[in-house]
Amino acid sequence: MRVKLEIAYLGTFFEGWQVQAPRAGGETPRTVQGVLEISLNEIFQREIRVHGSGRTDSGVHADGQVAHFDVPEGAPLLPSKKIPGALNSNLPWDARVLSASEAADDFHARFSATGKVYVYRLRRGDTLLPHRGLVEALASEKLDVGAMREAAARLVGTRDFAPFSITGSDPGTTVRTLARLDVEEDGSLLVITAEGDGFLRGMVRRLVGTLRDAGRGRIRPEEAPERPGPTAKARGLTLARVLYAPDALPGVAPAPPRAR
Amino acid sequence: MRVKLEIAYLGTFFEGWQVQAPRAGGETPRTVQGVLEISLNEIFQREIRVHGSGRTDSGVHADGQVAHFDVPEGAPLLPSKKIPGALNSNLPWDARVLSASEAADDFHARFSATGKVYVYRLRRGDTLLPHRGLVEALASEKLDVGAMREAAARLVGTRDFAPFSITGSDPGTTVRTLARLDVEEDGSLLVITAEGDGFLRGMVRRLVGTLRDAGRGRIRPEEAPERPGPTAKARGLTLARVLYAPDALPGVAPAPPRAR
Repeated sequence: MRVKLEIAYLGTFFEGWQVQAPRAGGETPRTVQGVLEISLNEIFQREIRVHGSGRTDSGVHADGQVAHFDVPEGAPLLPSKKIPGALNSNLPWDARVLSASEAADDFHARFSATGKVYVYRLRRGDTLLPHRGLVEALASEKLDVGAMREAAARLVGTRDFAPFSITGSDPGTTVRTLARLDVEEDGSLLVITAEGDGFLRGMVRRLVGTLRDAGRGRIRPEEAPERPGPTAKARGLTLARVLYAPDALPGVAPAPPRAR
Repeated sequence: MRVKLEIAYLGTFFEGWQVQAPRAGGETPRTVQGVLEISLNEIFQREIRVHGSGRTDSGVHADGQVAHFDVPEGAPLLPSKKIPGALNSNLPWDARVLSASEAADDFHARFSATGKVYVYRLRRGDTLLPHRGLVEALASEKLDVGAMREAAARLVGTRDFAPFSITGSDPGTTVRTLARLDVEEDGSLLVITAEGDGFLRGMVRRLVGTLRDAGRGRIRPEEAPERPGPTAKARGLTLARVLYAPDALPGVAPAPPRAR
């Protein structure tokens, strides 16, 4: 049986999603995949590997990360609706399983994904609150939100986003479709939402850095696609949602029902 | 010089506000007042005592706790606007000083306070997100928000709130004025705001327990003042603001300017 999990975590105290080899001193880095696998192994009394929709970097949060795993033959039976409770009572406080559901055998958290939605929270001011500020980054400079929105509009579309990657060496194509890049104001908080069919390593954080450059007048909005900004801090970034068919990307309306 | 501080903290990993004696094993409980005093002692190289507007219980959060302290004679000079940065670079991640300002010599964080505003966050559903849920409590039962609002309206006013205290032994009068008790819906979150001239120990949490009893039909709304409910969990409670003159309580409008 293949199980799909929806997971939320506070990235602050994790060294990213992906399991890493023990360090020279023998200590194993604390990762989200790592704590999930420890809990699953405990519950099913078997070694279980978890496959995420993608890695999140150290310090990046998630409201709706998706992963899958296979329940091994002969493992204790547990209906999928009991899995979140069982896992959450084993997991540390900063990771929660929001839902578990039986998935088709060919469902793959990474390869079946059709898109992702990321949110970046930028707090204007000079202090972050401890209980909300862990998922926000500070912007103490003056920002022209109109210019940020103009730059965002220039960045939306299908293009080679290689200049916005932080590795410069993504395998395969670096062409991506950025379906949405919104800048909303909520009091002193700027909420930047990026939605697309996929993102290169560090791409969302460099898009945010670019919008910030436009907002502070370092570049003109129309220069945004050619002048990628610096990489914004991980702490403001949250993976909000992973999209799977029949989730449609905005602007791609599902086919209307046929007339009989 | 007397300095007024505005402080925010995530209460989850603190054993309340007030400094406590070391435990039998020799370990000192981790308190907000404690970490503040350690940082102040570090900065001013003197033993400094911090006076809060009131204690918050273990697990209770604050967006705007207020405290004061006196800079001892001969201590290093530090303009008050430099104090938040200096303290925050010494404080642990879950406590932040939001502002510091010079106060009158007779200002007292506790005795000068004219009121307080508390917020209780109740999340309807069965899972709390790790990065927002630490300041929320779960409500998995069905709640009739209309009944909660009716009960809240019955609780507002000036009365002896002794039955709503958890100690049953508050020193002095137990008459308080509850100026406001609002229940607002924000998606799946219920936000309960209580404002008054002062609150007995545990009073806000028992008011919330009473509203919940009304919401689930255990009591009729009109019974609320006579049938205090159980004490709601600390994790949903945040001290939002401490009021000082000339902050006016709502409904107590400041005097209009005089005609010449």
